[in-house]
Amino acid sequence: MDYSERLIVKPGEKLRLADIDPGFHGHNESHEKAMPELGEALAGITRLQELLYAQKKHALLVVLQGIDAAGKDGVCWHVIQAMNPQGTRVTGFKQPTAEERAHDFLWRIHNAVPGLGQVGVFNRSHYEDVLVVRVHGLAPKKVWEKRYDAINAFERQLSEAGVTILKFFLYISKEEQLERFKKRLDDPARHWKISEADYAERALWDDYVKAYEAMLTKCSTDYAPWYVIPSNHKWFRNLAASRIILETLEGMKLKAPEPTVDLDEIRAKYHKAEEEG
Amino acid sequence: MDYSERLIVKPGEKLRLADIDPGFHGHNESHEKAMPELGEALAGITRLQELLYAQKKHALLVVLQGIDAAGKDGVCWHVIQAMNPQGTRVTGFKQPTAEERAHDFLWRIHNAVPGLGQVGVFNRSHYEDVLVVRVHGLAPKKVWEKRYDAINAFERQLSEAGVTILKFFLYISKEEQLERFKKRLDDPARHWKISEADYAERALWDDYVKAYEAMLTKCSTDYAPWYVIPSNHKWFRNLAASRIILETLEGMKLKAPEPTVDLDEIRAKYHKAEEEG
Repeated sequence: MDYSERLIVKPGEKLRLADIDPGFHGHNESHEKAMPELGEALAGITRLQELLYAQKKHALLVVLQGIDAAGKDGVCWHVIQAMNPQGTRVTGFKQPTAEERAHDFLWRIHNAVPGLGQVGVFNRSHYEDVLVVRVHGLAPKKVWEKRYDAINAFERQLSEAGVTILKFFLYISKEEQLERFKKRLDDPARHWKISEADYAERALWDDYVKAYEAMLTKCSTDYAPWYVIPSNHKWFRNLAASRIILETLEGMKLKAPEPTVDLDEIRAKYHKAEEEG
Repeated sequence: MDYSERLIVKPGEKLRLADIDPGFHGHNESHEKAMPELGEALAGITRLQELLYAQKKHALLVVLQGIDAAGKDGVCWHVIQAMNPQGTRVTGFKQPTAEERAHDFLWRIHNAVPGLGQVGVFNRSHYEDVLVVRVHGLAPKKVWEKRYDAINAFERQLSEAGVTILKFFLYISKEEQLERFKKRLDDPARHWKISEADYAERALWDDYVKAYEAMLTKCSTDYAPWYVIPSNHKWFRNLAASRIILETLEGMKLKAPEPTVDLDEIRAKYHKAEEEG
């Protein structure tokens, strides 16, 4: 399966989440059956990220969005970890600080954009400014409705500067979210993660769906496409994210840089004694 | 073996590298025999870093220094990767930029110090300012000789603010370095890593030894100790670094934060229907 093609939000398409099955899991019947494909994808990512780092011609930015418990942290843990931590940076965007609030909404985002040779991962992102801000009315409509265009212009400029942008919307069903909250309640090691706010947000589910649909419809572009990753099955979520990252890295035609020295000269000059011995 | 105790540079001790065997490999006879111990150490790091991240009471800073090819990247890859990339940040310090040069030598370092709940890894660090700078005379002696005290004061203040500092000097022999350079020559995928400068630095080996010894002697403190990691055997280097990190995390007595909500109330309010069903 070509995961990129299957899961992309086609630019210009009016997306409805109701048309997508969050329990979709492709051609693999189970986690177990998907393991070899996942292992191969992760090994490919490891290999190609090393080249991206060496070549310093491309940057990769992976944006993760999804409702609470959708698996943003899980993707960091199971997919991003395949990359060398040197050259990979995960930035979590929480409620803006006083300094961040004193700037435009893209200011803190821009600061965290990966440079050439680097991979950046955003756990939440500038899209919160058209999600939580919209749903909770933290800014007036005339402010947030301009942000879709601003985001597109920003992402276009990044892509022109060599940043390849992948945006993953991790999509779980409302029932699956409740199930995951319940599992936290049943696991003392994760009790600290539970907050009343998670449940309060849940009550706004339909408003979030509208905000997600607007974001996916208005901001999936040729230069920075959105992918909707069906995430009820964690293993499929990891597989799909890995495969799309791999397919993207493959498309970059990465290769190791040429040597900058005359290898024979180096050999003769510094390793001669050893070779004779 | 208590790796921390065995490999620490005791504060106040005058360290001579000639007294240390870079081929030392402890009680394990081989990589294969060390595998279970390494696996256990990495699993422990994974578990405890999650708690460090959750608790947000401690920060951990791991400083990596060592001559070229000593294995700084290898430690990032094989040890640091055991940690969740979210909450772990590797910073490589290269030749300072124009902006960095316009500031004091600790400015760019301070900016990369991990916050509470975070792990920071420095691949090279402020110690370059008493290493390469000293060996190449990039600053006059009266400038760099003051830096040892400045570094100690800086690190003391960080430790008082909750940052636990581990400094690893990866120690390989001069022969082992040449062997590793040779392996790069024999591996086309790594040809791009070869530079004449690496060999030129090699000619300054004895000067570097002096600078390393001064650094290890003057800047191993109770609050920010140096460890000399014998690194001719990559597997022992990884094992020793893992064990010292693990022993340090264990010493923090980390635990998951207390729940901030009344769990029974949450259960009754939001999960009742499900439980009755």
